[in-house]
Amino acid sequence: MKKISVLGAGTWGVALARMLANTNNDVTVWSAVSSEIDYLEENHRHPNLKESVIPDSIKFTKDIESACKDKDIIILAVASIYVRSTAKNIAKYITDNQIIIDVAKGIEDNSLLTMTEIIEQELKNYNPNLKTNIVALSGPTHAEEVAIDLPTTIVSASKNIDSAKVVQDVFTNTCMRVYTNEDVKGVELCGALKNIIALASGVSSGLGYGDNATAAIITRGIAEISRLGLAMGCNMQTFLGLAGIGDLIVTATSKHSRNNTAGHLIGEGVPPQEAIAQVGMVVEGVNALPAAIELANKYDVDMPIVFMVNAVINEGVSPLVAVNTLMTRKKKSEI
Amino acid sequence: MKKISVLGAGTWGVALARMLANTNNDVTVWSAVSSEIDYLEENHRHPNLKESVIPDSIKFTKDIESACKDKDIIILAVASIYVRSTAKNIAKYITDNQIIIDVAKGIEDNSLLTMTEIIEQELKNYNPNLKTNIVALSGPTHAEEVAIDLPTTIVSASKNIDSAKVVQDVFTNTCMRVYTNEDVKGVELCGALKNIIALASGVSSGLGYGDNATAAIITRGIAEISRLGLAMGCNMQTFLGLAGIGDLIVTATSKHSRNNTAGHLIGEGVPPQEAIAQVGMVVEGVNALPAAIELANKYDVDMPIVFMVNAVINEGVSPLVAVNTLMTRKKKSEI
Repeated sequence: MKKISVLGAGTWGVALARMLANTNNDVTVWSAVSSEIDYLEENHRHPNLKESVIPDSIKFTKDIESACKDKDIIILAVASIYVRSTAKNIAKYITDNQIIIDVAKGIEDNSLLTMTEIIEQELKNYNPNLKTNIVALSGPTHAEEVAIDLPTTIVSASKNIDSAKVVQDVFTNTCMRVYTNEDVKGVELCGALKNIIALASGVSSGLGYGDNATAAIITRGIAEISRLGLAMGCNMQTFLGLAGIGDLIVTATSKHSRNNTAGHLIGEGVPPQEAIAQVGMVVEGVNALPAAIELANKYDVDMPIVFMVNAVINEGVSPLVAVNTLMTRKKKSEI
Repeated sequence: MKKISVLGAGTWGVALARMLANTNNDVTVWSAVSSEIDYLEENHRHPNLKESVIPDSIKFTKDIESACKDKDIIILAVASIYVRSTAKNIAKYITDNQIIIDVAKGIEDNSLLTMTEIIEQELKNYNPNLKTNIVALSGPTHAEEVAIDLPTTIVSASKNIDSAKVVQDVFTNTCMRVYTNEDVKGVELCGALKNIIALASGVSSGLGYGDNATAAIITRGIAEISRLGLAMGCNMQTFLGLAGIGDLIVTATSKHSRNNTAGHLIGEGVPPQEAIAQVGMVVEGVNALPAAIELANKYDVDMPIVFMVNAVINEGVSPLVAVNTLMTRKKKSEI
């Protein structure tokens, strides 16, 4: 049994909290949004996970200090744009032996840091002598499915393999199978960039194209993400793995994905800004574009799908012209 | 303009014949089934490709000799079980400069030969001095989509890169993008084994499992296919490519796939032999099992999904027990 806090009460945080409580851990959920905590305490259900009951054993708190103190594991389950501020807030409570897990996916504009790198930076800013144990948890994991115990696989990635293994042990149960991976940079790169490829996949289906085109976009998408990853020193196997191709498949073929939906609308002819507004929530693929373009340029890597998505979203290129440009590029070898 | 024959008048052969004729090649279609040729000549449509008109320029023949003579390219588009007999039949008409393309996917039981290896063997049996130019064409390519000019990508694979490039030139158009690959063994291995993974994916959805499980099966499926491929001397990039993960995505997520459908029925509780009978056509994944098991044993490679599918189909293990066994294996690293 571990003492675990989940910071953030979105669907993914709550689905994980429920699973960890049901497998005999001592779980506390914290949120910066006071009304979220009130709702969960009162209803024992998350408003977007209606099929799933939150066990009575879960504690709720609005106090960040008590959420961090004396915990074995602290899970950051806030949106990627709040990872830096949350890490800054908790820095003074974190001690050497605690494991910090990040489940948010993204790359920060300008700094080009991944989520675990941001957390590391903020914790070390406060206490340069802290021995950090930071793990990225990523993979093909719809919260809606984990919340009702459907079988799911996930990657526990850390430069510190001992921390990755502790997380593997804690999260493994008959419904969740956990693989470790030391290539945390590769895992996080996949998580941030897959949303751009999902946008492209949506554009293709919006244009009326079929499964052949979707499979091509996913496959050539992971090819260009892995080209960038290799240039950045990551491991090829990561891109072929659950956080890579696995998560990309779930995101680019799911109708529940906001990125896919926004892309679909754009493919049907809705202007990009209007499509994003219609989706009504953050479209992470759009937010990830500046960092992706910057990384491709910095490492001098050919990323035709990412650049075409950027041209459609930010430069007024029509989806049809974009796809035709991709289809009629110079002839290539796969290898 | 090339003189091209398509041997076999199934949906894939006819979709390719139409595309090649529409891009200004001189195309002849042959079938061993006389009634198929009569039907196509009379109706100019394939019975299973109703949206697609066969251009008048295509010639039809029942004479295998005239189908082979003076052609630049001969495409074998027969089912995998007929590849050996067809190659044997055409051997006496084949000359040094002709390119033979195989589009059938499979591995022969006992011999463990791929389709291009069977063709090579039969052609050389007849004429040991023949200079063969054999290409495997494979990828995520629903015939129904190519038949109506939806964007599609494909791999032209050959040990002879010049032949692969000729095929790339001939098949490239605004709707089809062709990548070359010299790792023909890897490409053919993917084509044969993906159907087993599609069976597993069907079993999972039949059990009521969700997208997380499907993505896990596809991802861990390509991991075990690539482990075998690496042991057999293939290139990792092939498995990450269009004929690998690309074709697997199309097969394992499509409701049109017979393998997926058979698996789904089995997951719902229909006994395997009854499920196969209900599908009513060849279920290639079932046929590929003996060769896959033999290869895994021969090269001493861990292929848990393939072995679990075999246990369900041939050894009476229940789908639920099979999935639980996969989920509760020894904890692993991804790499």
